[in-house]
Amino acid sequence: MSYQPVPEDTFSFGLWTVGWQGRDPFGDATRRPLDPVEAVHRLADLGAYGVTFHDDDLIPFGSGDVAREAAVKRFRQALDATGLVVPMATTNLFTHPVFKDGAFTANDRDVRRYALRKTLRNIDLAAELGARTYVAWGGREGAESGAAKDVRAALDRMKEAFDLLGQYVVEQGYDLRFAIEPKPNEPRGDILLPTVGHALAFIERLERPELYGVNPEVGHEQMAGLNVPHGIAQALWAGKLFHIDLNGQSGAKYDQDLRFGAGDLRAAFWLVDLLETAGYDGPRHFDFKPPRTEDPDGVWDSAAGCMRTYLILKERAAAFRADPAVQEALRASRLDELARPTAEDGLAALLADRTAYESFDAEAAAARGMAFERLDQLAMDHLLGAR
Amino acid sequence: MSYQPVPEDTFSFGLWTVGWQGRDPFGDATRRPLDPVEAVHRLADLGAYGVTFHDDDLIPFGSGDVAREAAVKRFRQALDATGLVVPMATTNLFTHPVFKDGAFTANDRDVRRYALRKTLRNIDLAAELGARTYVAWGGREGAESGAAKDVRAALDRMKEAFDLLGQYVVEQGYDLRFAIEPKPNEPRGDILLPTVGHALAFIERLERPELYGVNPEVGHEQMAGLNVPHGIAQALWAGKLFHIDLNGQSGAKYDQDLRFGAGDLRAAFWLVDLLETAGYDGPRHFDFKPPRTEDPDGVWDSAAGCMRTYLILKERAAAFRADPAVQEALRASRLDELARPTAEDGLAALLADRTAYESFDAEAAAARGMAFERLDQLAMDHLLGAR
Amino acid sequence: MSYQPVPEDTFSFGLWTVGWQGRDPFGDATRRPLDPVEAVHRLADLGAYGVTFHDDDLIPFGSGDVAREAAVKRFRQALDATGLVVPMATTNLFTHPVFKDGAFTANDRDVRRYALRKTLRNIDLAAELGARTYVAWGGREGAESGAAKDVRAALDRMKEAFDLLGQYVVEQGYDLRFAIEPKPNEPRGDILLPTVGHALAFIERLERPELYGVNPEVGHEQMAGLNVPHGIAQALWAGKLFHIDLNGQSGAKYDQDLRFGAGDLRAAFWLVDLLETAGYDGPRHFDFKPPRTEDPDGVWDSAAGCMRTYLILKERAAAFRADPAVQEALRASRLDELARPTAEDGLAALLADRTAYESFDAEAAAARGMAFERLDQLAMDHLLGAR
Amino acid sequence: MSYQPVPEDTFSFGLWTVGWQGRDPFGDATRRPLDPVEAVHRLADLGAYGVTFHDDDLIPFGSGDVAREAAVKRFRQALDATGLVVPMATTNLFTHPVFKDGAFTANDRDVRRYALRKTLRNIDLAAELGARTYVAWGGREGAESGAAKDVRAALDRMKEAFDLLGQYVVEQGYDLRFAIEPKPNEPRGDILLPTVGHALAFIERLERPELYGVNPEVGHEQMAGLNVPHGIAQALWAGKLFHIDLNGQSGAKYDQDLRFGAGDLRAAFWLVDLLETAGYDGPRHFDFKPPRTEDPDGVWDSAAGCMRTYLILKERAAAFRADPAVQEALRASRLDELARPTAEDGLAALLADRTAYESFDAEAAAARGMAFERLDQLAMDHLLGAR
Repeated sequence: MSYQPVPEDTFSFGLWTVGWQGRDPFGDATRRPLDPVEAVHRLADLGAYGVTFHDDDLIPFGSGDVAREAAVKRFRQALDATGLVVPMATTNLFTHPVFKDGAFTANDRDVRRYALRKTLRNIDLAAELGARTYVAWGGREGAESGAAKDVRAALDRMKEAFDLLGQYVVEQGYDLRFAIEPKPNEPRGDILLPTVGHALAFIERLERPELYGVNPEVGHEQMAGLNVPHGIAQALWAGKLFHIDLNGQSGAKYDQDLRFGAGDLRAAFWLVDLLETAGYDGPRHFDFKPPRTEDPDGVWDSAAGCMRTYLILKERAAAFRADPAVQEALRASRLDELARPTAEDGLAALLADRTAYESFDAEAAAARGMAFERLDQLAMDHLLGAR
Repeated sequence: MSYQPVPEDTFSFGLWTVGWQGRDPFGDATRRPLDPVEAVHRLADLGAYGVTFHDDDLIPFGSGDVAREAAVKRFRQALDATGLVVPMATTNLFTHPVFKDGAFTANDRDVRRYALRKTLRNIDLAAELGARTYVAWGGREGAESGAAKDVRAALDRMKEAFDLLGQYVVEQGYDLRFAIEPKPNEPRGDILLPTVGHALAFIERLERPELYGVNPEVGHEQMAGLNVPHGIAQALWAGKLFHIDLNGQSGAKYDQDLRFGAGDLRAAFWLVDLLETAGYDGPRHFDFKPPRTEDPDGVWDSAAGCMRTYLILKERAAAFRADPAVQEALRASRLDELARPTAEDGLAALLADRTAYESFDAEAAAARGMAFERLDQLAMDHLLGAR
Repeated sequence: MSYQPVPEDTFSFGLWTVGWQGRDPFGDATRRPLDPVEAVHRLADLGAYGVTFHDDDLIPFGSGDVAREAAVKRFRQALDATGLVVPMATTNLFTHPVFKDGAFTANDRDVRRYALRKTLRNIDLAAELGARTYVAWGGREGAESGAAKDVRAALDRMKEAFDLLGQYVVEQGYDLRFAIEPKPNEPRGDILLPTVGHALAFIERLERPELYGVNPEVGHEQMAGLNVPHGIAQALWAGKLFHIDLNGQSGAKYDQDLRFGAGDLRAAFWLVDLLETAGYDGPRHFDFKPPRTEDPDGVWDSAAGCMRTYLILKERAAAFRADPAVQEALRASRLDELARPTAEDGLAALLADRTAYESFDAEAAAARGMAFERLDQLAMDHLLGAR
Repeated sequence: MSYQPVPEDTFSFGLWTVGWQGRDPFGDATRRPLDPVEAVHRLADLGAYGVTFHDDDLIPFGSGDVAREAAVKRFRQALDATGLVVPMATTNLFTHPVFKDGAFTANDRDVRRYALRKTLRNIDLAAELGARTYVAWGGREGAESGAAKDVRAALDRMKEAFDLLGQYVVEQGYDLRFAIEPKPNEPRGDILLPTVGHALAFIERLERPELYGVNPEVGHEQMAGLNVPHGIAQALWAGKLFHIDLNGQSGAKYDQDLRFGAGDLRAAFWLVDLLETAGYDGPRHFDFKPPRTEDPDGVWDSAAGCMRTYLILKERAAAFRADPAVQEALRASRLDELARPTAEDGLAALLADRTAYESFDAEAAAARGMAFERLDQLAMDHLLGAR
């Protein structure tokens, strides 16, 4: 099998990923800036389907209207020339020092108002370019010390901001939904809405909850030591997986943004298995950083690797699910029983059922093996292509 | 100041905390069993207000009705003799091997039904003893391998279980609410509803969400590297802090259950500050394990230490908030501005406000210092009693 | 390829691994005790080469001499019948409550003396059974609180203990070396000699350093977020990899002891690559715990899975190293240059070499790509059997 | 007590700490460059005793000889004017992109040679300015992927580099020792010599081990979840604590470089207790980053806070050790017994001592409580100034 991506695979990349220059907390840039137009063409050549951007990726911060229009025009021409689409856009509310204490939850009210206006302006562009999802990563919404942020007040401000954005989108008639991207820390000591769970919970307190979902990032959840497929499954269960950022991370450390598959490969396998079987129909969006050791050739090798690994894992997950021995092992582990309601007979019947409690033989039930190790080794064999 | 606890401080302890025998994954028990009646008397002597229990703490698993009634009667007499109350109860759905693959989300349907019946039975006892909160820690609801648990199906079963329990409480007319206790892992490789956020989000999909809140445990959130006061603040913001488990933990490792204040002391300070200023009116419940190096005297020293440290931190937090220099520092850090709405003038006015964007001087705004370090050192001084 | 293990693969298992009954901090045993004799036979049937033990695995704590001899005799007969060898033995200095504050570094001197005697006694048995390596895991040597252990005094006691053990082995003429097993925490809050590095450094302060090496355990290093192959490489570089414990772990959490390959699969791949290319000639020892969800069949599936995955990874690593495209990629990444001395010309020549500094073009050198991403994707392809 | 630092407290700061401009992986600088001369004067005003630097902090990368001499001259005049000393210096081998794959262990040999020459040049300046310690932090010595670095070869290159540096210092007759600074990760995915232990072990393989010690950084060890006072104690035990970097960190996440005392305050207390009682006579060096939320006033508040907190903790630790109740509690916890040899009677006597094994009553010994919780609460009381 060739593992050659095609647009139908719906792979998309942020301009800031392949365009990352390699500046890190201890080092200067190792690569020159990448023209967004070149990025579009190279991504199309590699087989991608979409490209995404922060406002400042496309239009440098502080540009005047003329420069802005020129940048957008060139970008649009590249899209037209390649057929790439813009499924998502987002706002940069973290690079400029004005956002050092946050954007929607900055202590300074004028900074909050500015952040909202910056976002609203880019929502117009996102809608104009056909994006259906608007991602919001509040990377600076947090604190390094305890009294610096009244978290309840900050959540009030966060709700206010999202409610205003939702109102705007509705009033403008845009076909655009918001996807909130959680992260536990970095660049702030602790960031508000640190995990998929916290973001899902927050959404339920908004005025138009149906407009908001999540954009989980593989590495962000792993920075908190959480099981990524579990978190994504809860988002899917809640009907809230609006978008996803695929990358790699090796445990609880700085945000690595490795290419997809690097870091925890088995988590990547189960994630692909989930996305491909759960009916997720959004883009497979890679939010990674080609390591700063790489030159431009290495950047494109890295981008290609994200897609290739996804396609290999997709093939392996499909083979796993199709294997009769696996299906038998799943039954031996009683996954079919988990799919059945526990008490479709209702509460009264459950209470009256003496086999459920009074005559239940706990010791006998405890003696049943779950056969999970056999099942998991079958998964290992499929992942490794050894079956 | 004496830091001598009194019942008005609403300190409560689980029977399983002071009664922990010190069995760990690598070692046998170091202490003999503790009679619940003795626990009640000793806790009362130390100044506690309440005692809590799992069904099996009070009534050994598998007891017949006669033994059960005798155990309850003795316990109730100890409560009457001491004045201790039972503000909360919970179910042990994790010790017996029948729960090795979970309880409400076990793959085996009969185990799920048994778990529900075991819980329902103990809810009756909880109500009878006057508990107002019923805690649910699903410690075995999880997996060690990817195919072993279909998480979406498991969440369906979890919802089914909580909906049935809610129905029961309503039908019985019990004045009892549920508090779900999250934990990221241990004893399962990954546990469902791993953080406060995931539990808050789950609750919103239940039939009677108003009946359910969370019971965060300090160490559980810290096992995921999360900021505990932040998570508690989000629970309070959502109106869902129904109960709390206070203890100590040193970062991302095994569940330590240290006495309160041990581990991350500054987080403990900010947590007490939050609980005491946010109007939390539930019990201050200690869910800790006296280290297995301790004999019974050490157990009681450890329990007393939990309360003493809480009272010291409460005093320090109050002094911090009352200090005029702190109030000035909070203003210098613009906490007052965070409390103001961002756009009480509405979306249209925000869009029309040229000072918010077109003429906003981002550089000038970026140059303002937030003065957080000065504020945080004042907090350090108060915490250390050095001011 | 069959991936069927044979004794030449030198796979060994601890009695305590397949014999683990599934008791964990929150739950009772889920499996019955396993007779060591049965373990030996089953392991031999699976293709293992060796079996290892703690004294108490073979001879229950407190057994009299008669029971002891009988147990040893039965065990030896099983070895003879199967051809399994005992390459390693170790002491249980952690299960009995007498070791609650440690063994060689317990604050109580009589406990320290007892621990030494218990170890010395089992060293005799180890030698008698032909073991060449004696592992020392000081799981209880540590503390939960700051003043409880004077670490420098404790290291004095630790050195004293190992020096005595070394003296004994030399005096007895045993052909036995010690392998110290590091672990960062659990069951103590912090354990002394927490990583491979700390153990290697400690050894250099012993009287007979040549007698001591390390026994790294995959999961233990990963509990500290460390790169396992890196740590093993440093141990090999120091000539100190005397033994190794292979298992799986998912990051910084409780000690999971998953079967080999589970957890971080890519680390497992690089570890096998290292062991097989670096001339490590000791046993491939699995120190894992079959999850408590498993019945005895699951235990053996799990043990078989450890070996099968090792053999698959060994095949993949060999294919990776043999692939001409990989060899070319390694050169493109200048691994050949890393193997060359930096200054074989000596200090004076280096100082005199103007091309090394004065005329060195840092910008040009900085522009060279390292081509690591291409190399790493080749490794991914080989690991996944996709090339 | 005033907690006003004086030079006798030996507090020192790196130029790069108070001079940090706040550039992080997601954001641009928030502060203007700080003139080293201003830094010297401000630090002196605050009560510091020393200042330290990387070559590039003082002399911008690529400066010609004239600019270099001018920079050094101005710096020296500031030292003379203020009385500040330069106890330590170090090399920047991480900011320029030429070091993207490392310095002493870069795959490219010419980069390695350049790194050595850059270091040798700055060693001359360090010696000229009177520094007694030369720190080496190999922040870029590592890898993000498995085949990119042959770790054993890299350790050969690392040894070669340090041996050459040692030869140079000896040949020049400099009174200068090297202190290796470990770090587990960031900016590389995994860094070589990741912990104090690994660095201590590495030193033993150098040609002149006596010339090399460690420079542990509080936060670096905590990024690996390790107990800092334990690691420092092992360095002291080995006679290798040549220097120390004091700061704060909240667990396993990105390198926070918080001011001293922030993060894990109890670890800071025990660390100060250790340094002040163990005879450490080097500088108390703060290697922290004032958060980028701060303006210059906040920078100096943050620097002052480091010293103030140290002095408070020093006072509290002294009071703890002087308290008769603590001394009694230490005896109750048998710290005096830990200080006694285990077998000063020798191996033969130990083997002959029937009370050590044959007649030892393990159950009775196991029943003794260690009284650690009482001791630790006394420490808590002293730390909080509540006793």
